[in-house]
Formats: sequence, C-alpha cells, structure tokens
Amino acid sequence: MHNLTELNALFEQTFTADEFNYEPASLYKPVMHIMCIPGKRIRPMLLLMACEAFEGNLHEALHPSYAIEVFHNFTLVHDDIMDEAALRRGHPTVHTLFGLNAGILAGDAMLSYAYKYLCTFRSHSLPDILDVFNKTTIEIYEGQQMDVDFENRLDVTIAEYMKMIEYKTSVLLACALQIGAIIGGASQADRKLMYDFGLKLGLSFQIKDDWLDTFGVGAKVGKTIGGDILQNKKTFLFISALQMADDADRATLLSLLHETDGTRKIAGVRAIYDKYHISETTLAQATTLYEDSLSCLKAVSLPETQKEQLYLIASRIHDRDF
Amino acid sequence: MHNLTELNALFEQTFTADEFNYEPASLYKPVMHIMCIPGKRIRPMLLLMACEAFEGNLHEALHPSYAIEVFHNFTLVHDDIMDEAALRRGHPTVHTLFGLNAGILAGDAMLSYAYKYLCTFRSHSLPDILDVFNKTTIEIYEGQQMDVDFENRLDVTIAEYMKMIEYKTSVLLACALQIGAIIGGASQADRKLMYDFGLKLGLSFQIKDDWLDTFGVGAKVGKTIGGDILQNKKTFLFISALQMADDADRATLLSLLHETDGTRKIAGVRAIYDKYHISETTLAQATTLYEDSLSCLKAVSLPETQKEQLYLIASRIHDRDF
Repeated sequence: MHNLTELNALFEQTFTADEFNYEPASLYKPVMHIMCIPGKRIRPMLLLMACEAFEGNLHEALHPSYAIEVFHNFTLVHDDIMDEAALRRGHPTVHTLFGLNAGILAGDAMLSYAYKYLCTFRSHSLPDILDVFNKTTIEIYEGQQMDVDFENRLDVTIAEYMKMIEYKTSVLLACALQIGAIIGGASQADRKLMYDFGLKLGLSFQIKDDWLDTFGVGAKVGKTIGGDILQNKKTFLFISALQMADDADRATLLSLLHETDGTRKIAGVRAIYDKYHISETTLAQATTLYEDSLSCLKAVSLPETQKEQLYLIASRIHDRDF
Repeated sequence: MHNLTELNALFEQTFTADEFNYEPASLYKPVMHIMCIPGKRIRPMLLLMACEAFEGNLHEALHPSYAIEVFHNFTLVHDDIMDEAALRRGHPTVHTLFGLNAGILAGDAMLSYAYKYLCTFRSHSLPDILDVFNKTTIEIYEGQQMDVDFENRLDVTIAEYMKMIEYKTSVLLACALQIGAIIGGASQADRKLMYDFGLKLGLSFQIKDDWLDTFGVGAKVGKTIGGDILQNKKTFLFISALQMADDADRATLLSLLHETDGTRKIAGVRAIYDKYHISETTLAQATTLYEDSLSCLKAVSLPETQKEQLYLIASRIHDRDF
C-alpha cells in the first residue's frame, strides 16, 4: 500500500508533459497546456487508492486513473468556455490562449482519449467500468446544464441544488472510487459502498466550497471572497437563506441580486446570512455528509487498516488542506 | 438479408424522435433537434449491411449503428459552431437555435451517448469495437484540425490533403463497416478488408464532393455551386491546379484568392481549372478510388451474393443519388 505522496509521484512520472506530444500540434498543444497545469489529481488518487485497498494491481489502474483526470480536465476546458473564464488555477484558460475553436476541439479529443485510456484495462470487468463511466459523464453534463438553468431561477430548492452538485461534482469522485474498486476486484456490494463514499464526500466538499467562497480567508482559498455573491450564484448558502428568511429579509435578499456596488452587495447578503446562522447551518450540513461518507467507507468489507489511505485523503479533502 | 429501404425503416422505427426525450430539456432539446433532421443515415446503414453480410444478428448491431449516427451528428454540431454555419441540411444549426453553450454541451453529451450505445454490445469483441471507435474519433478531430490549419497555408500537398480527408471523412465510414463486420463475427483479415473498402469509398466520395461543388448542377447538389472557391478552400481541385499550373497561371490562381467579386472569382478559377483539365483529373481520381474500394470488398471471403447490398450502396454513394 502506497501513501498519497508515493502515488502522486508515480502518477506524475508515468504521465509526463510529453503525453500529448502528437501532431497536429494545433490540436494537441491546448491539451498539453491544460494537462500540465499542476493540480492535486484528487480523482486519480482516489481511484488508485481504491484499487490498492482491494489489493488490486496498481499498474492496471494507472491508465484508468489518467482517464479520469483527462476527462475532468476536458470538462474544465469546455466549462471555462461556457463561463467565459480567463483564468484556471492562475493560468490562462485554453480558449483564451488558443481560441474558441481550439478549445472546443481539444476538449472533444480529451473525451475520446479518456475512453482510450480507460479501454487499456483488458478484463471481463471492462463493461462494468464503461457503464459507470458513461453514466457519470452524462450526469456531469446534466449537472452542468442544471447549474446554468438555475441562474435564471429564484425558486431552486435545496433538493434540486443537492441533485445539481451531486451530478456536477460528486459523481466523478464516486466513479473514480468505484472504478478503482472494480479493478481491485471488489464485490458488487463493496463497489456500491465505495461509490456512495465518494458521492457523500463530494457533496460535503462542494458545500464546504460554497461556505469558503463567502466565509473563507481569501489568501487561503485562493480566490476572491464573495465571488459567488457577486455572481448571484444559487449556492447552498443563498438557497438556505432564501428559505429561512422572513418576508422582509427575503425581499432584501432578492433586491440585493440587482445591487451594483460589490462591497454593499456582499455586506448586505452576509448580514442576512449572519442573522439566520447560515454559516453554521452550512458547516453542519457539510460535516453530516462527511460523516455519512465515512460510514459508507466503514461498511466496506475490508480490514480497516487497508482503508487507511482512503480515510486520510477523505479527511484532507474535508479539511481542504488538499 | 435486408435491403436499404428495409434497414432504413427498421432504424427509424427503433430510434424515434423520443430517443433523447430526457431532463433537463435544455440539454436534450438541442440533441433531439439535430437527431431529428432527416438524413440518409449512410454510416449506420453501412454498419447494419456489414453485419448482415457476415450473417450477424441485426438486432445486436442496431444500437452500435445508432452510436455511429449520434457520433456523426455530434461532430456536425461542433463543426457548425467552428464554421459559424447558420444552416445544416436546410435547418437552423444547433448553436443558432439554442446558443453556443447549449451547442457545446449537447455535443459533449452526444459523444458520451455514442459510447453508451456502443457498449450495449456485450461480447468478448467489445474491446475490438471500442479500439477502432476510439482511434477513429481521434483521427476525425485530427482531420478537422488539419482542415483548419490548411486554411492559412498555400503549400498543402495532395498527399496532405488526402490524409486530411481520410481522417475527416473516410475513417468513419471505414469504422462503421468494421464494427458491423466485428458484430457479424468476421475474421481479422475480413475486418481489415471491410475497413479498407470504407476508407477508399469515403475518399472517392469526398473527392467527388469537391468536384460537385465546382462542376455540379446547383439544384441537384443542394448547395451553391462555387462555394469552395468563394471560401478559398484547399480542395483536391485547387491543390491539383496549383500543382499543375505554370508560373503565370499559378500567380493568377493565388491572386484570385483575394478577388472580392464572387462571379469574377469563380469564373477566373474555373478558367484555370478548365485549362489544366482539373475536372477530368478529379473525376478520374474519384473513379480510381471507387474501383479500389470495390476490389477490397471483392477480396472479402464471403460469397458475392452476400455482399450484394454493400455493392449497391457503394454504387449509390459513388453516383451520389443517395
């Protein structure tokens, strides 16, 4: 069993900057650009750890783990186009650097390469892996579309919001863990538990992400505090506040959507959040989901010592030091 | 063995307008729009015919054939964005009707659905099918990128052009035929021959397409004659003319790239094409490739009677009445 540092080193040694050094360069340079932005590689790490927990062959899991990372980065390339984002983790986005068409086509190629890397796993379990991957990718587009649709709605419920973040964020963590478990030879019951572990962990992660955007410390979070408020995003915080507020505060909250002074807007929304203890409610929800995720992991039929690395990475994801 | 009309009817009955009637509608309406534009379904028909030629189970081939059609339409959606095209077969393009973001995301979803439909074929041959499909989709993006890169070049060779149309157009016909052959249980040698049959047929088809754009009869072709000339496209005709012309004519041809009067531009280019018998050269090339494709089909180790439908569709594709 390898720890995170070791797995990360193996991953980065295996998939170097040269991985997409193909022709035509105009197609592959954008791919190399996004794949070379340093990242935490959370999803492939989860896949590799799941495989090792079940004492699977780590080397069989490497290309599938890269498939998940390539897929994740493909979604970032296309999402950045849709969001008209100029920066991604401090680097220029693909379409900013190479143009819209290159961004679209590079993304498309990455999706096919993700399948290509996945298909290197030659086993009778390949169809199971493809089934969960197909299902997951489709859910992610559905989640992305829900997120877009929510922008123009004021009546989004917490249940709808939870479904959206489940699809947009959680299912890929769940998928990575399940694929690792399948490669490791896990039973159907354990595959399902690993999936649910990832699903709850992802939900907790996203809700904490919402919380950090408003209540975090800017330098530590690495982005501007209050960005979601400025963009009128329907976050867990906003939807909860809208649900809990009395008529007057609800009206204030809705009118603040049109406030053009950023400082006043953030202060106004935060005042209402404070009045209704939104920070505490949100953190409590993230913690509950995190604990749910641990319960799923606990139920997996393996000795607890074999789950050590998974517990560790889960706690680091929850504490957001990773 | 079924004929084209019967296979087409089966295909359209199986995959109705309701096929993508899912939520969120904002994601799937664009998919339904493009999939419902009536088309000839050439690629799925080739797949089904190949399967039947090898006496495979037609019903096992149906979903894979739809996968190829969904994939093909995905490339149209994204290509239309890149080309800023307003119309597709007389209907508004997806991004024109639903916006850029919906076009990107709907296309992405279609690519994943193509894999999902492909994976319905549960057999030990699934990895072979996925291998050729992965390879093909990647080549298509590479071909599309080459086409874009050629726009800014004047030194494109015939060899480069042939590689570009092979990737952009031919490989998908070849892939469809090979997948049909695999589902039908063909040997490795026959799979390869079926692939090559499609590859040559596709090349012949594309070169004839170039020819029709300049020398065809407008109403029959269904698009404006001379469109490629107006867009300065590096077609088989243009590259051949550039290669064969003397220095003076070559200079004229290059200066015509900047001609703003459309009628004069078309007339000027056609005069040079006529002088160097480009029409005849091009048609001869298309015919040679068509005959090459038939040789491949002939070499497939099946009784000729079982290849009847394939010969028929090939001749109809060549004669462009299909």
